[in-house]
Amino acid sequence: MPEPEKIVTACMLVIGNEILSGRTRDANLAWIAPQLNDMGIRLMEARFIPDIDEVIVASVNEVRARHDYVFTSGGIGPTHDDITADAIARAFGVGIDVDPRARAILEAHYPPGELTEARLRMARIPFGAELIDNPVSRAPGFRIGNVFVMAGVPAILQAMFGSVRHLLVGGPRLLSHTVSGHVAEGKIADALRAIQDRRGGRLEVGSYPFYRGGKPGTSIVLRATDSVLLAEAAEDVVAAMRTLGVEPFEVKSG
Amino acid sequence: MPEPEKIVTACMLVIGNEILSGRTRDANLAWIAPQLNDMGIRLMEARFIPDIDEVIVASVNEVRARHDYVFTSGGIGPTHDDITADAIARAFGVGIDVDPRARAILEAHYPPGELTEARLRMARIPFGAELIDNPVSRAPGFRIGNVFVMAGVPAILQAMFGSVRHLLVGGPRLLSHTVSGHVAEGKIADALRAIQDRRGGRLEVGSYPFYRGGKPGTSIVLRATDSVLLAEAAEDVVAAMRTLGVEPFEVKSG
Repeated sequence: MPEPEKIVTACMLVIGNEILSGRTRDANLAWIAPQLNDMGIRLMEARFIPDIDEVIVASVNEVRARHDYVFTSGGIGPTHDDITADAIARAFGVGIDVDPRARAILEAHYPPGELTEARLRMARIPFGAELIDNPVSRAPGFRIGNVFVMAGVPAILQAMFGSVRHLLVGGPRLLSHTVSGHVAEGKIADALRAIQDRRGGRLEVGSYPFYRGGKPGTSIVLRATDSVLLAEAAEDVVAAMRTLGVEPFEVKSG
Repeated sequence: MPEPEKIVTACMLVIGNEILSGRTRDANLAWIAPQLNDMGIRLMEARFIPDIDEVIVASVNEVRARHDYVFTSGGIGPTHDDITADAIARAFGVGIDVDPRARAILEAHYPPGELTEARLRMARIPFGAELIDNPVSRAPGFRIGNVFVMAGVPAILQAMFGSVRHLLVGGPRLLSHTVSGHVAEGKIADALRAIQDRRGGRLEVGSYPFYRGGKPGTSIVLRATDSVLLAEAAEDVVAAMRTLGVEPFEVKSG
């Protein structure tokens, strides 16, 4: 687990053919990204991959070595296409079988005779993993090493994330400040570069063009861990807009 | 470019810090996935990566070797954080400079004196690349090898994709059939496995649980290139549901 002062990073793996085919629109990435950010964990990468064993194994091993935390969604249900748990076990080089703790949870949940063999698949947990509580539909997720394996259904993923949130240790939180105005991106670009360069690597400046009411504009998003530096940079952006004859219509922090 | 009968695959690279921070919700993956599918191109992977040069270079080189087509979105605007074009040039080991064709397009578009140095950055195109027409805001994308580099703004990405669609050669199209009913996933799982196993590798069966009107149910999505096999498999799923006493409320193809 990371030390308090270093930058803490994460990767999200969205597992499932249905997202890549366009049938289902993923809602988990957009939900988890700001949750992590608020905790001082930077989501540096997200991958959408299909339900193919070797792709899951290779992806998990690649990203778990590179990031402090890995979160996966999808593929832990009762059907034949739910292969995530087995793939994760293979990625870690450990065995997998029906876990007595998980089995007990499912036995307590289903009426007698309803715990089918298919449902019992949901109790397959890699050796050495800790269960992640699922207050919505009981079948647990699990954590092994720095990898948190969760369900794809958004309500369940969110509940599982709530169950493990206390285990996550973030680093310095990236604060943000947004300045928006009806200025063309190409006109304010030079000023933005200067504002960023002046602060070395301590400020990140993003620039996002938009159209609102038929008029083009740009949102400038500033990010830094130092709140004083951030506020000063935001004032610089406001001044740069005014120099171009544009009054920002929105200046907000957070 | 792929031969007509082989399976044609693609990867999408969504480039930009704003998506990973949760500030912006990506709309391009959900748009492009069904477009490709309709053309017989299977989106096998999507990666969301930050505006970091070495990450873009490594990701592009990894996925362009693995897939027939790579589509990128984001990072080709006029500001300092728009580094995609330079990163792609580095990935291909070629130079990059202001392209005379791209410059001519921007000169024709902006009023005299408005083509700032920042905007001229949008004319930076890797050597050997072909331009991708941008009917929305003129600044072009480009294609180099099997990599199609497009803007992140959805209206522009969609227009650029329209400009290159005729260049893409798909393989056999994956047809689909969906059967939905108020049956628990864990109850129909065994039948689904048998339905898939019976057809070897020629049928893909996905199973997606849902709640509708407070009642749990499952959508079974069947995919195959053979329409006859697909229709038969759909009949098998309907029969399996009826065996469980459930009448499917939706059976649809496509």
